[in-house]
Amino acid sequence: MQILPGTITGRPVRVGSVGLGRLGVLHAENIAMRIPGAILSALCDLDRTRLEHTAAALGAERTFTDFAEMAAWDGIDAVCIVSPSALHTKHIRIAMEHGKHVFCEKPLGVTLEQCKDAEQVVGAHPELIFMLGFMRRYDPSYIYAKQKLDAGEIGRVVLLRSYSQDPDHQIKGALAFAPHSGGQFLDMAVHDIDLARWFIGREPEKVWAIGGCYAHPEFAQHGDGDNVSCLMKFEDDAMCFLLAGRTSPHGYNVETEIMGTKGTLRIASVPQKNLVEILDEHGVRKECSQTFHERFGEAFLGEMREFISCIRQGRRPEVSVSDGTRVLEIATQCKASFETGELVCCK
Amino acid sequence: MQILPGTITGRPVRVGSVGLGRLGVLHAENIAMRIPGAILSALCDLDRTRLEHTAAALGAERTFTDFAEMAAWDGIDAVCIVSPSALHTKHIRIAMEHGKHVFCEKPLGVTLEQCKDAEQVVGAHPELIFMLGFMRRYDPSYIYAKQKLDAGEIGRVVLLRSYSQDPDHQIKGALAFAPHSGGQFLDMAVHDIDLARWFIGREPEKVWAIGGCYAHPEFAQHGDGDNVSCLMKFEDDAMCFLLAGRTSPHGYNVETEIMGTKGTLRIASVPQKNLVEILDEHGVRKECSQTFHERFGEAFLGEMREFISCIRQGRRPEVSVSDGTRVLEIATQCKASFETGELVCCK
Amino acid sequence: MQILPGTITGRPVRVGSVGLGRLGVLHAENIAMRIPGAILSALCDLDRTRLEHTAAALGAERTFTDFAEMAAWDGIDAVCIVSPSALHTKHIRIAMEHGKHVFCEKPLGVTLEQCKDAEQVVGAHPELIFMLGFMRRYDPSYIYAKQKLDAGEIGRVVLLRSYSQDPDHQIKGALAFAPHSGGQFLDMAVHDIDLARWFIGREPEKVWAIGGCYAHPEFAQHGDGDNVSCLMKFEDDAMCFLLAGRTSPHGYNVETEIMGTKGTLRIASVPQKNLVEILDEHGVRKECSQTFHERFGEAFLGEMREFISCIRQGRRPEVSVSDGTRVLEIATQCKASFETGELVCCK
Amino acid sequence: MQILPGTITGRPVRVGSVGLGRLGVLHAENIAMRIPGAILSALCDLDRTRLEHTAAALGAERTFTDFAEMAAWDGIDAVCIVSPSALHTKHIRIAMEHGKHVFCEKPLGVTLEQCKDAEQVVGAHPELIFMLGFMRRYDPSYIYAKQKLDAGEIGRVVLLRSYSQDPDHQIKGALAFAPHSGGQFLDMAVHDIDLARWFIGREPEKVWAIGGCYAHPEFAQHGDGDNVSCLMKFEDDAMCFLLAGRTSPHGYNVETEIMGTKGTLRIASVPQKNLVEILDEHGVRKECSQTFHERFGEAFLGEMREFISCIRQGRRPEVSVSDGTRVLEIATQCKASFETGELVCCK
Repeated sequence: MQILPGTITGRPVRVGSVGLGRLGVLHAENIAMRIPGAILSALCDLDRTRLEHTAAALGAERTFTDFAEMAAWDGIDAVCIVSPSALHTKHIRIAMEHGKHVFCEKPLGVTLEQCKDAEQVVGAHPELIFMLGFMRRYDPSYIYAKQKLDAGEIGRVVLLRSYSQDPDHQIKGALAFAPHSGGQFLDMAVHDIDLARWFIGREPEKVWAIGGCYAHPEFAQHGDGDNVSCLMKFEDDAMCFLLAGRTSPHGYNVETEIMGTKGTLRIASVPQKNLVEILDEHGVRKECSQTFHERFGEAFLGEMREFISCIRQGRRPEVSVSDGTRVLEIATQCKASFETGELVCCK
Repeated sequence: MQILPGTITGRPVRVGSVGLGRLGVLHAENIAMRIPGAILSALCDLDRTRLEHTAAALGAERTFTDFAEMAAWDGIDAVCIVSPSALHTKHIRIAMEHGKHVFCEKPLGVTLEQCKDAEQVVGAHPELIFMLGFMRRYDPSYIYAKQKLDAGEIGRVVLLRSYSQDPDHQIKGALAFAPHSGGQFLDMAVHDIDLARWFIGREPEKVWAIGGCYAHPEFAQHGDGDNVSCLMKFEDDAMCFLLAGRTSPHGYNVETEIMGTKGTLRIASVPQKNLVEILDEHGVRKECSQTFHERFGEAFLGEMREFISCIRQGRRPEVSVSDGTRVLEIATQCKASFETGELVCCK
Repeated sequence: MQILPGTITGRPVRVGSVGLGRLGVLHAENIAMRIPGAILSALCDLDRTRLEHTAAALGAERTFTDFAEMAAWDGIDAVCIVSPSALHTKHIRIAMEHGKHVFCEKPLGVTLEQCKDAEQVVGAHPELIFMLGFMRRYDPSYIYAKQKLDAGEIGRVVLLRSYSQDPDHQIKGALAFAPHSGGQFLDMAVHDIDLARWFIGREPEKVWAIGGCYAHPEFAQHGDGDNVSCLMKFEDDAMCFLLAGRTSPHGYNVETEIMGTKGTLRIASVPQKNLVEILDEHGVRKECSQTFHERFGEAFLGEMREFISCIRQGRRPEVSVSDGTRVLEIATQCKASFETGELVCCK
Repeated sequence: MQILPGTITGRPVRVGSVGLGRLGVLHAENIAMRIPGAILSALCDLDRTRLEHTAAALGAERTFTDFAEMAAWDGIDAVCIVSPSALHTKHIRIAMEHGKHVFCEKPLGVTLEQCKDAEQVVGAHPELIFMLGFMRRYDPSYIYAKQKLDAGEIGRVVLLRSYSQDPDHQIKGALAFAPHSGGQFLDMAVHDIDLARWFIGREPEKVWAIGGCYAHPEFAQHGDGDNVSCLMKFEDDAMCFLLAGRTSPHGYNVETEIMGTKGTLRIASVPQKNLVEILDEHGVRKECSQTFHERFGEAFLGEMREFISCIRQGRRPEVSVSDGTRVLEIATQCKASFETGELVCCK
């Protein structure tokens, strides 16, 4: 990790956050209440009622309905971007041109052009911290698995398998969002693609993607399925199988298996809600996490803590802007394979 | 293990079995169909219909309604006693005095006098094999645990904890049997007492037993509870906690934990029916065994195979007649503690 | 299931078995000792020492070094074929032309021509039972999962994922066998292909296969990998991901996941040796099965019991000869995809 | 829960904390960094170096080596007492007489007289919040179990079983602390006694305690064992089996089972470190938590958050001072039974 010169400071980092959807509120709460050394100074959203209400509850000093105005305010050092995906790169450029550090939710952008634009502006501002929200890398279990892999405990990676499944009881929201989501590969599988590159440490070469509408034909209208999967061949032969689905009956299921020549690691193959085991007429069972914040609450906190810490210590976070570009490229190739039914090259 | 001289033989062992309750039929089936070297030659029961039907189905050559007649028949080499508990020792004596090897279901007897009588007759016939049906010792998982313990892998035994729980859906049968069962300690906990002595390798010194009628007040009429437990102090300080219950909602639950100074072994802490895991609206779950034959089918087969093998090879089985006596004594002391509320000495 | 007329009989089925490798001995033992109604009457193998030794131990009446002679002997009703794969169909033809029922180990044959030949001879002998050894269908856990699927409990199949992994400690044998095995798809994945067709109830349309030599470069000499996988698109969109590997560090790992729209079933995702859980310096753990007979002992017994039962009751077993042909076709298509790196049509 | 009048305030609660052992530092960090609405204003310890170092790191305004001086300072609203157990009640009295809210680590005191004194001073200051550190009640898994119990989902409590086991690798610290710890029942089992009263909702009537020195004879010098257990009979017949041990090979093991007539709940029967499952030469395993802060980090944070929240909202916490007295009484009775070998009445 490269250390930036001269930027360690004892002053709290003042953050302005844009976007107050479910995830935006979670980020705002974390900044306001759970990260020593961070202050939630400003909030920005188009919905004035929600904006004022949230700002009051979290003690934000200023509110904005225009992102550029917030970015221009000298009362903040950094911005947290949780706006609609299509606006991410625009907001990144505005913020950085106003000298603000940037945390941006995934995806980096919705087109390759947007990603390239973000790379350009981030590259032009080496004095500023940029971090992309691949929060799984900050989950304690994923961190633990990565350490074991890096320590050579499982040998060479043979296969990475990763599932991202939303619970079926959230299907209404998923259907409503479907026209704008970019599809399961761009909306969901990007996290798994990031994990695959992180764990395998190489790039995919070829992909074949399939899937269908097994329970919800509505997705077909958007050229999508309710469950999709792909098989990828990575450089040096590592295999990768990813699945993204919207119909999980048991809950929010994000699981990853890393099979190596000396051992296999499975992360969350039982997506247990907590440490309670129940023995009753249904057998011996564990109830499951139902939402992303239930499963990844600690990871969302961890990534924001890392962002603030990077700013204060002048360190670069592990995820670079080009990781964001690369993941979008690969997800787009998956989508192309799904749509054409053909093998697609990832290079 | 002591080898008896000169008794290895290639001739199949011909067995007569008495008692055609659920467990009696299971033993008869095993002898008739699943043990090479054994033949089910005779059956004995008071219920003529069941007797003839079973004999026909299993190919038994002769049927008897009088045990002494079967024991006297020279068409059998051995008897399998699955008659009512109060008759066990009487049948043991008759069989041995007719020169037959004896397999007897637990308990050995229902009084100490009976047990002493059995010891006498077994002792008087060193040329005959006697085996008591503590089948758990022949369950692959219990065998595996015992081997690890004996190999020193878990160090010195600190605690043995064992539960015997019948499913609540069998409560009608349990209530009907309650007047004659001898109570939970004599009827159920004897298996756990046998396990405790087997694993710990020493004798209990003191016991305190408690319990109650938590769901089924009917047991109180027999001075019993629907769930009872006891804590025992063994020689050399090993601790032992046993529970016997009739109200298990999830199934037939027999689990044992052996905590040692270097490791802990748990046998069947999840009483899973098979290797299927289900993920659905109830969470991630395993369905459970519902009956003793579902859980211990292989153990019942294993003990009978051992009985036949001991006869053919002239070996003595591991369980001795005095084990049967000792277990009854201890169960009786547990019961006395339960009834008086006081500590009871086990010596 | 179709009932054949007039063939129910009380006479035991006399079987002659060919091939005394590890699996051949297991089948012979099951026939000789564990299946009421079956008699092991004859054995055939080229290794005279092993042949005589095994026949004596299992009580087989006759031995043969020539399969045709055994097939011609009127002392048997049925043959069990565990000869080298390349000889299977030849042995099937000889046996059936001598009027013998046939149980044949997988694979049916090693070329499509062989399979077609077998189909022809089986079709020409409707009076004889033919059964192929896809033993997993007779494993209690797979049977249980199939019943749940058929009862609609997991809804429509979205994904079937199945792994067949041999332990790395058996790599020497695998390498020695590699020149003749046909490769991982034909040798190992055929079981998973059979399961996929059985559970999904439809045919694959397209496949893409990848893999590599992650630990054992020797497999490359045979155009194979030590771990390979494939993604298949089935009719009606069901997805199927299979993996076959030779480097499992924890043991013999055969696991299957069937993800449905209403529930997911996982069979043996922890390939536990038994019900013992160990708590020690390595954490909380279960030791694993190490060999196919440890994991599938009951399934091998179950399939042979079904074969005998079909003969005695005049029933046809569930697996047909054309299943064998179809599975070989698909495995061959997987192999072709692996070798060319291209998508392959399965029709 | 009773609401105190007029004490809700927007002003942060300023806390002074005494005692900077491992747990004292954890509490101080939580107050300083992880609880919105709380400020760590002062620290008190006899070790000046540690005191100044910690105060600087956590931004505490003042430091004290005399508790009474800190309690008298009007820069704090509340104290957090993590001093040696024998000083707890003295510190409680001093703090309350200076008008400070009090959070006190367990145990309340080391003698009944001390506890009575604490009850007196707490009773004399109804305007102040008093909370005792039974942190397990604030662990998410225990909270979840309690909600299920209270909702009637497991019926009537039959048995509560609870283990508190420290890892053997911490035995040096445990031995050093042994002369002053009060023994396993007072030092460790108090948490389990609190859980038992909380879950069962009644009082114990009788107890029998046993145990021994299985690996570390040094404990015998203090009239203690390295592993001890007790069986308790509660009012209305609920059974309770507790174990406290110092020799756990696999890690920090705190597990609780609540067996009811309609279901059983197990909390942390596998004390897993995280959601990673490892498949390697040791089998399929989960690594375990090794320390109390690894297992209960969230619970320690939760209880302090509740303490601060009670002060700000004028609510009384669930745990009362008399709970502390009652738990000490019961632990003392367990100890008496262990020492005498006799049954002891708990009333």
